Amino acid sequence: MTATKSRTRPAPATSREIDAGTYRVVVAAGLRHEYARLIADAAPAHHYAIVSDVEVAPHYAEPLVLSLAAHGPVSIHVIPSGEAHKTRDTWARVTDGLLDAGCGRDTTVVALGGGVVGDLAGFVAATFMRGVPVVQCPTSLLAMIDASIGGKTGVDTAAGKNLVGAFHPPAAVLADVETIRTLSPAQRRAGLAEAFKHGVLADADYFARLEAQLPALLDAEPSATLEAVARSVEIKAEVVRADERENGRRKTLNLGHTLGHALEHVSGYALLHGEAVAIGMVLEARIAERLGLAEQGTAQRISEVLARAGLPVQRPAALSVDAIVDATRLDKKARQGRVEYSLPAGIGVMAAADSGWSLPVDDQLVHEVLA
Amino acid sequence: MTATKSRTRPAPATSREIDAGTYRVVVAAGLRHEYARLIADAAPAHHYAIVSDVEVAPHYAEPLVLSLAAHGPVSIHVIPSGEAHKTRDTWARVTDGLLDAGCGRDTTVVALGGGVVGDLAGFVAATFMRGVPVVQCPTSLLAMIDASIGGKTGVDTAAGKNLVGAFHPPAAVLADVETIRTLSPAQRRAGLAEAFKHGVLADADYFARLEAQLPALLDAEPSATLEAVARSVEIKAEVVRADERENGRRKTLNLGHTLGHALEHVSGYALLHGEAVAIGMVLEARIAERLGLAEQGTAQRISEVLARAGLPVQRPAALSVDAIVDATRLDKKARQGRVEYSLPAGIGVMAAADSGWSLPVDDQLVHEVLA
Repeated sequence: MTATKSRTRPAPATSREIDAGTYRVVVAAGLRHEYARLIADAAPAHHYAIVSDVEVAPHYAEPLVLSLAAHGPVSIHVIPSGEAHKTRDTWARVTDGLLDAGCGRDTTVVALGGGVVGDLAGFVAATFMRGVPVVQCPTSLLAMIDASIGGKTGVDTAAGKNLVGAFHPPAAVLADVETIRTLSPAQRRAGLAEAFKHGVLADADYFARLEAQLPALLDAEPSATLEAVARSVEIKAEVVRADERENGRRKTLNLGHTLGHALEHVSGYALLHGEAVAIGMVLEARIAERLGLAEQGTAQRISEVLARAGLPVQRPAALSVDAIVDATRLDKKARQGRVEYSLPAGIGVMAAADSGWSLPVDDQLVHEVLA
Repeated sequence: MTATKSRTRPAPATSREIDAGTYRVVVAAGLRHEYARLIADAAPAHHYAIVSDVEVAPHYAEPLVLSLAAHGPVSIHVIPSGEAHKTRDTWARVTDGLLDAGCGRDTTVVALGGGVVGDLAGFVAATFMRGVPVVQCPTSLLAMIDASIGGKTGVDTAAGKNLVGAFHPPAAVLADVETIRTLSPAQRRAGLAEAFKHGVLADADYFARLEAQLPALLDAEPSATLEAVARSVEIKAEVVRADERENGRRKTLNLGHTLGHALEHVSGYALLHGEAVAIGMVLEARIAERLGLAEQGTAQRISEVLARAGLPVQRPAALSVDAIVDATRLDKKARQGRVEYSLPAGIGVMAAADSGWSLPVDDQLVHEVLA
């Protein structure tokens, strides 16, 4: 592709742009052909350090290295794939890689990959010489609609997920919906769980559109995917703008995550994040119904569409109820020793607006719903 | 000491309070008896995690643990002392210690110690669950007048000092000038180097007062120390407020540090930070004179008072000139491969206001001044 040709892309009908406050999110089919120019525009630097993983790099890294090289020295730092590698060790190795490559304060980090790459590269950027810019180029559905938006970065420890990290909003998010085609069907399904979450927490019409478009979304059909990614980004960006530091409304994004994180942890990360969130959303909706916070039928409607999407909707029998309840205590959202839940009031609306969008729930009820 | 008695301390004449923008700095003799109340006021939390080191903890940790216990669960995390332990490994161990102690997001970290403890505990706080408050209780002169002010936190890597870190302003800084008495004379002298730096970069009268008060300061005489700490904090806080992210005026605080960091690194940290900065200030003032930026005699006046304070003022013969020049390239202030210096124009005024308060200097000139 020539420079002239690439400058005419993307066509207006296949591209969306969302203002996320201090940065913009561009969603388009084929956007990867524009990455270098958009990165250099959003975060001009002396050195560009691309962080990617062994799954994603073979597909997309080489053209990005070549095109970024027109803007300055480029280094690439490839990590193993998977949540098991989202650790302080990998963070330290990537940081040392940047230092070895001669990166100084005038470096822009480029995160090219899924949620693990985005979280880890974001934390490298947040802490490298006390903070350099990061541009997020998410290549998974999950990363596009969730992980890359909102500035949360971090790594896991043996004690739990994302226990170490920083708020470090990106300089830009560049989402090429065509990259979703290289994901496995299981990964695509897992990403959809977060899209349905956005529908439940903020927009009943969007939830209904996702129900209707489910076959196209499972096929990674570009226009359906683009519309879903754009609407999810709008919802998440709006919530984060209202409450970056998660003192209030941002907590609604934790729907499905208090139990989801615990399930993921107890499964030893055998469950994908989106799978764990799918189960967590159904069970937390059930808790909300039992507490009289949600309309009856809410859990059922969520459960049906997630099952149609091929996602799990109940606790895997191998995971012990006690272990899951214990794991909820490690949740960052636990305050004064009490575990807090953000619960739905129905499709499109969350409960507990007047108590900061989260509530403590008795372990006994959590046990019953898990059993 | 009873609660009633402690509430009447400190007497107005022996205490100073400086508004540092988002937090306040309290400087007083005997302030350690007030730590718990002031910490709980500035950053109320469910859990208080004290970070200290093996030198400082035996002097001051026990009363702090006991008095903080009235406000909530307290844990204490003691690290080895010295710059060699300001590492990612120590950071990870302290973080895991907090997790083991059951700390959640509603934790306040208390840094009780010198600059190493403050930088490391600050970075733990900056990254623990994406950021919890830290209260700095500096116990060394260096930490009181420099390290605890301004929000810079971080750790060293094999490649250099403070290459990994975050901006994380404290919730409060509580400086008890009486704690300086437990420092070795070498540590007190090293702290004075940064006080003289503040005089050079912003206040000729303050520089002259430090010259006049030198014997009292070397004896850690409380009222002389209190006045020096308070004026240095005012100068540093004012510079940081004007430019937190070091895009301009904050660079003036790097006076003496481009060469100072390089000397410290090449010495294998055998030089104390303040000792390296003392040498760096004299040599950088000489560079400024050679470039025609500083009045003749500036380097001489700085050199004389630092020598009277017992600080080194020239390159130790064992450290190779080439190795020092090479080490300057690792400086975070290097941009586009050029090493930048913040240079004095005289006592009380810095050069290069119209070029962002820093300038590139030819390696040749640096070689000559070091030789």
